[in-house]
Amino acid sequence: MSDPTILERRTRHGGRQSKHRARGAAQSHPPYITRRIPPYALLDEEGLAAIEALADRILEEVGFEIRGDEEAIQLFQSAGARADGWRLRFPKGLVRAIVQASTPSQFIQHARNPARNVVIGGNHSVFSPAYGSPFVTDLERGRRYGTLEDFQNFVKLAYLTPFLHHSGGTVCEPVDLPVNKRHLEMVYAHMRLSDKPFMGSVTTAARAADSIALCRLLFGAAFVDKNCVILGNVNVNSPLVLDGEASRVIRTYARANQAPVCVPFILGGAMGPVTTAGALAQCFAEAMVCVALGQLERRGSPAILGNFLSSMSLKSGAPTFGTPEPALAYFAIGQLARRLRVPLRCGGNLCASKVPDAQAAYESANSMWPAFLCGANFILHAAGWLEGALTMSYEKFIMDVDQCGAFQTLANGMALDDNAFAMDGFLEVGPGRHFLGSAHTMRNYETAFYEFENSDNNSYEQWLEEGSLDIKERALKTWKRRLRDYQLPPIDPAVDEALRAFIEREKAASPDAWH
Amino acid sequence: MSDPTILERRTRHGGRQSKHRARGAAQSHPPYITRRIPPYALLDEEGLAAIEALADRILEEVGFEIRGDEEAIQLFQSAGARADGWRLRFPKGLVRAIVQASTPSQFIQHARNPARNVVIGGNHSVFSPAYGSPFVTDLERGRRYGTLEDFQNFVKLAYLTPFLHHSGGTVCEPVDLPVNKRHLEMVYAHMRLSDKPFMGSVTTAARAADSIALCRLLFGAAFVDKNCVILGNVNVNSPLVLDGEASRVIRTYARANQAPVCVPFILGGAMGPVTTAGALAQCFAEAMVCVALGQLERRGSPAILGNFLSSMSLKSGAPTFGTPEPALAYFAIGQLARRLRVPLRCGGNLCASKVPDAQAAYESANSMWPAFLCGANFILHAAGWLEGALTMSYEKFIMDVDQCGAFQTLANGMALDDNAFAMDGFLEVGPGRHFLGSAHTMRNYETAFYEFENSDNNSYEQWLEEGSLDIKERALKTWKRRLRDYQLPPIDPAVDEALRAFIEREKAASPDAWH
Repeated sequence: MSDPTILERRTRHGGRQSKHRARGAAQSHPPYITRRIPPYALLDEEGLAAIEALADRILEEVGFEIRGDEEAIQLFQSAGARADGWRLRFPKGLVRAIVQASTPSQFIQHARNPARNVVIGGNHSVFSPAYGSPFVTDLERGRRYGTLEDFQNFVKLAYLTPFLHHSGGTVCEPVDLPVNKRHLEMVYAHMRLSDKPFMGSVTTAARAADSIALCRLLFGAAFVDKNCVILGNVNVNSPLVLDGEASRVIRTYARANQAPVCVPFILGGAMGPVTTAGALAQCFAEAMVCVALGQLERRGSPAILGNFLSSMSLKSGAPTFGTPEPALAYFAIGQLARRLRVPLRCGGNLCASKVPDAQAAYESANSMWPAFLCGANFILHAAGWLEGALTMSYEKFIMDVDQCGAFQTLANGMALDDNAFAMDGFLEVGPGRHFLGSAHTMRNYETAFYEFENSDNNSYEQWLEEGSLDIKERALKTWKRRLRDYQLPPIDPAVDEALRAFIEREKAASPDAWH
Repeated sequence: MSDPTILERRTRHGGRQSKHRARGAAQSHPPYITRRIPPYALLDEEGLAAIEALADRILEEVGFEIRGDEEAIQLFQSAGARADGWRLRFPKGLVRAIVQASTPSQFIQHARNPARNVVIGGNHSVFSPAYGSPFVTDLERGRRYGTLEDFQNFVKLAYLTPFLHHSGGTVCEPVDLPVNKRHLEMVYAHMRLSDKPFMGSVTTAARAADSIALCRLLFGAAFVDKNCVILGNVNVNSPLVLDGEASRVIRTYARANQAPVCVPFILGGAMGPVTTAGALAQCFAEAMVCVALGQLERRGSPAILGNFLSSMSLKSGAPTFGTPEPALAYFAIGQLARRLRVPLRCGGNLCASKVPDAQAAYESANSMWPAFLCGANFILHAAGWLEGALTMSYEKFIMDVDQCGAFQTLANGMALDDNAFAMDGFLEVGPGRHFLGSAHTMRNYETAFYEFENSDNNSYEQWLEEGSLDIKERALKTWKRRLRDYQLPPIDPAVDEALRAFIEREKAASPDAWH
């Protein structure tokens, strides 16, 4: 393993290790993933057509309710749906036709640093941190409610890694801020502490509008009207209901030419059937209706087809993660989204564990592999998620990022060229000898293998000497070091002032609300 | 989550939980996996042909040495290879032609309990425990050398789970036994403590012969001559060398119509090139030669094409696991093996971690997903592996088995029938209501979702009350309970007596050797 030849040369060439570290910096990695490997195809043409037909039947025979948004009902009526109160019923194929008529199959989400722009759709994948946890946890302070400081820390940590391409949205709930003003500081943190693309508020249409207004200050109003600069992650009230506020949030983003991420949340057996094919068809139908709503509001505006399909414990009814049923659903919805030609969102490094232990890691990997191989274009919850999204973990965030880097390398596929074939190496080395010092190895050594920053690959004895650490203890050191080394990206002071002025004006305009 | 309707019904129906537990017992699960989902196709026809051509070039231009086995050299010479001392050079396509002329594309490995027979090849997968660790570890006693008692414990644990289909081979090294007599007690433990199929000794040809002799006593000599009842896992001395003892072991198994598993072990940059395509072609070439050797010894005898491709730490030269490069190689070798029409071995739940922490789990899942999706037929190291195969962990074994169960469910694919489509459920429930008490849910609830036995899906508060356990602490309880509840499977006393007599005779015939 430690052939002197290569170790000597390494020293002679001066700090291969430091070069490797430099390679790890954000600038040398692409701002998003381009998958050069094919997606996994689970279902055949007949199976896919059956799911699509089922989605059509659900939308026609059961229908979908948009409760409390008359404009949305009218938009769909004008497009050919039948309305009965809030209940809409769609002739077969109508929703698909609306979606396909104008939804972009891929789009650029612009970042304030153009080098960080991401392409969402096609054979591209964008990784974004976990979203929505009221709690945060770390090894030293334990589990507690999230604060703005925690929120800012996760924005900084996402900014610092090349393996997350997106700053995310509600990376944790800053519960120390009033409910009605949180969104302003969250959006500002993404804008100021990072220069990556981000997500805005979705809790009310007014907060969505505030998020977009801040974008107009940052990017310029004319630019925003022509380009996607913000996403809004909107949950469907499954089964088959969108409440009026959520529907207005979708329309707010679409009207501004920004991208709603339309996400049915289906815990099989509760918000949908326990059988995967049924839950999948429901999810697909619901997400299509929401994407269609955005298109009716503004044709050609960007959108992402989302899904969140989870299984359930037979013992307790609690949601479970990393199980095979959602994996199968991911594979299939990847195929359905490609047929629909709409960018797909899947999550992520999901788990039920309360701590960043082996349960957390197995379940996360079991969610991430199908999300990645199904060809998802936007992978939310790629880092930090614990406990069914209730808690954002600093150490889990760091570990998950290591995994995201591996998927980035996997996406490059296998090089098939003379250098990769290494025939010169075989001829040089021959049977029974080591490749360590060979010219082929020396030529390729530095770029050969992805390495997990927080994994320990040393001997047992070295590991003992270094304190017998569990990976979570190494991850603790990593995030603390990263936050210590963090440097604020520059911003035009006039823009910053305009953002702060808007925020302070909004805050002053209404009393604090705490629920 | 805890809708009273279903919880009431559950109680009324009396112990759904105990039924679930019963479903978990070995008898109700199939003895091996039949994959109803397609394998993942990484490379296209052109890419696969390029790798095959490279393997041909390596075998022709560099060659392959069988050092110290003149019979093997002669067998290949007679088949058309050119020999120069121990170095063989093969005209393009020769090795492939030998392999394809007679190697079965699938075969049955018989168990002494016919209900445990496994099919190796085709669209079947067999999971087998980890192999070869000198050390064992558990949470209470820590890391120590393995003993026969540990060996027996792992055989019992593999016997007790429906998610391992195979008893394995050297599940750990029983270092308390003399080196030259270990194999007898190892094979006996597999035969006596389990009734699943197993692997024999490969350290010398004589020990391989002993392993087969014991099989003749257990299964009958005539049966053994006609049927596969034992596998022998033989490592190639990569690059491009097979030592004479290993080659005689391959021939010993093949001559007895038993299956050698031919496994190049390639740490990229050491025993092969650092570039994946080159290492893959080398591995494929080496494994094909070994399979061909078995065919030349006895045409039509079963064999398994193995591979072990690992990456390396740039910092230390240590092997690394769960990285993307071996994953890509797995995907490709799955395709190559199918084109060759020979059963494929991949491993498993591999990792470098010293403890069953999140590192162990991420890396293991990253190895297992590509091993499974590439269509591997025999997955060695499916449970227990820690620390690059140096240590067998009781807790990791239990956790890995949970994961194996998930892949078994994944393999079933997605049901596409009226029940799975759940249209009756949608019509019954409608928008905005819960599926929990619906007829469709009640009809499907019990079989809906796979659940990890050792995962905690409870609320944070429940988890705190139960002691804030890491999964490894739950796994500790599980393996101790299982070993406590273990019951010896019955065996014909006359056969048992014959086995013991053979073993005692062999032991008495030579002095103990300790290295």
